[in-house]
Amino acid sequence: MSLLPEQIIRLDESVPAVVLLDQRRLPDEAVELTCRTIPELVDAIRTLAVRGAPAIGVAAAYGLALAALRGEDLTAAEEALAASRPTAVNLFWALDQVRDDPTPGRARALHEAEVERCRSMSAHAAELFPTHTRALTHCNAGGLATGGYGSAVGALRAAWERKRLDHVLVDETRPLLQGARLTAWELEQVGIPHHVIADSAAASLMARGEVDLVVTGADRIAANGDTANKIGTYSLAVLARHHGIPFYVVAPSSTLDPDTSTGAGIVIEERDATEVTPRFPARNPAFDVTPRELITAIVTEDGVLS
Amino acid sequence: MSLLPEQIIRLDESVPAVVLLDQRRLPDEAVELTCRTIPELVDAIRTLAVRGAPAIGVAAAYGLALAALRGEDLTAAEEALAASRPTAVNLFWALDQVRDDPTPGRARALHEAEVERCRSMSAHAAELFPTHTRALTHCNAGGLATGGYGSAVGALRAAWERKRLDHVLVDETRPLLQGARLTAWELEQVGIPHHVIADSAAASLMARGEVDLVVTGADRIAANGDTANKIGTYSLAVLARHHGIPFYVVAPSSTLDPDTSTGAGIVIEERDATEVTPRFPARNPAFDVTPRELITAIVTEDGVLS
Repeated sequence: MSLLPEQIIRLDESVPAVVLLDQRRLPDEAVELTCRTIPELVDAIRTLAVRGAPAIGVAAAYGLALAALRGEDLTAAEEALAASRPTAVNLFWALDQVRDDPTPGRARALHEAEVERCRSMSAHAAELFPTHTRALTHCNAGGLATGGYGSAVGALRAAWERKRLDHVLVDETRPLLQGARLTAWELEQVGIPHHVIADSAAASLMARGEVDLVVTGADRIAANGDTANKIGTYSLAVLARHHGIPFYVVAPSSTLDPDTSTGAGIVIEERDATEVTPRFPARNPAFDVTPRELITAIVTEDGVLS
Repeated sequence: MSLLPEQIIRLDESVPAVVLLDQRRLPDEAVELTCRTIPELVDAIRTLAVRGAPAIGVAAAYGLALAALRGEDLTAAEEALAASRPTAVNLFWALDQVRDDPTPGRARALHEAEVERCRSMSAHAAELFPTHTRALTHCNAGGLATGGYGSAVGALRAAWERKRLDHVLVDETRPLLQGARLTAWELEQVGIPHHVIADSAAASLMARGEVDLVVTGADRIAANGDTANKIGTYSLAVLARHHGIPFYVVAPSSTLDPDTSTGAGIVIEERDATEVTPRFPARNPAFDVTPRELITAIVTEDGVLS
């Protein structure tokens, strides 16, 4: 099975509503969440029913179209959507794209273009995979995160289709387990052999020679190439460097933020500590920043950036 | 409150039984588990009702005394105990110590000496802490793991008593969350400020300058200083080196295994994959090996080894 873009997110004009595959319920059940209002959609983004920077951008574009269909104040709708997740620059980019023409057709065109970019960047990234690659990935940079096909998971899919990939190690990705819940589920859907591991096991498996490359997505890429992504990504980049393993970032060019010169300027979302433990004091930074010098290559729909 | 050694593990001759504080039930409730037979005790060790290399050694010594009280075949009892956890060399060491005299008094003396060694190594380790230290620790090398006071957590307690410690970051330690369940609970008991973090957040907090040193226990130390400990320890050692942060191992000399020349000779226990996820294929190495060159110092009851 291949997860179709419209199964992940769509605008249903007959309701009207933005309809999402509820990622909080995966892998136990694949159920849809119908967001009839902007507050419902903002809540869906905040609570991670839809997550992944490109998918949030698509959701926001559909959201602005929904607000237009409902005859609502578009400035207020845009402000509410923009405030839902501060790290994902695609969100602001997507709102920019549809602001002047927030129609269903425009939002759908943005969604289709996003998926097409995924296929393109994935094809470029697959060229970096040697035959019999054993890859490691973190979090979920899959079709669920991009509205279809995926970025890092797209690269894995493209490499698998080209018979360059043997196996994927999937970081479970605490605290919210996007790897163990979402990436493993997507790899199961498309039939790619995989094993989930505790995040802290990656270093040991690298040392044992069981990892040929690391591939992740990105939430925001600063002008100098510093990359914000799910907490734990920076850890993997340091570990990959120590073990002489390539570390690749695959993301749409909409993730590039020319207004942020370096990673130091990226606001890191600190999420509720109870996501880590409800019983003791906890810290819960949701993202980290990987400096450009630890990234072997950044791959977008335009090719491999150097 | 200070957790007394006899609250963690003891031999009750009136039953007779080895009585353990059941670590599987912490932090929700502090309940005792009464092991009346060797198979019950082996099961308690296997299922981590008691865990931590020194505590397992103490449990095994009490177990052999229990078998003697019950008039059982001591060779069979010893073989069953020795097979319960393959990585913990203290287990074999403790059995060696009591084999010729498996009396309650001898087992108790071993337990008391183990706790006394903890206090001694912790005092040595605390000397390595600068004032206002913000430490990071992994898993649980606390009183629960040693039968009292603790090794790495003992070092934190000794540094706290000497007013050299400000704060502890506690790796939650997936998959079984010994950090989030046990170390946080112990630090709460003794009043040391702490925050639990996802294991993968350690690198990012090091990069932000929030970690002054890393301190962990050890399950087995090879003759050359290579150290096996909970999965994720090696990851921290690599990350500490990258960030120029000292990485200390605190463990009793009974953890040193002169018969294992290097870490390559240490058998790594692979535990049930369902501990990571019951839903997808998973890998679950329970330990990793940190090479000596990444360890700033190993501290035992004899002092700081160089």
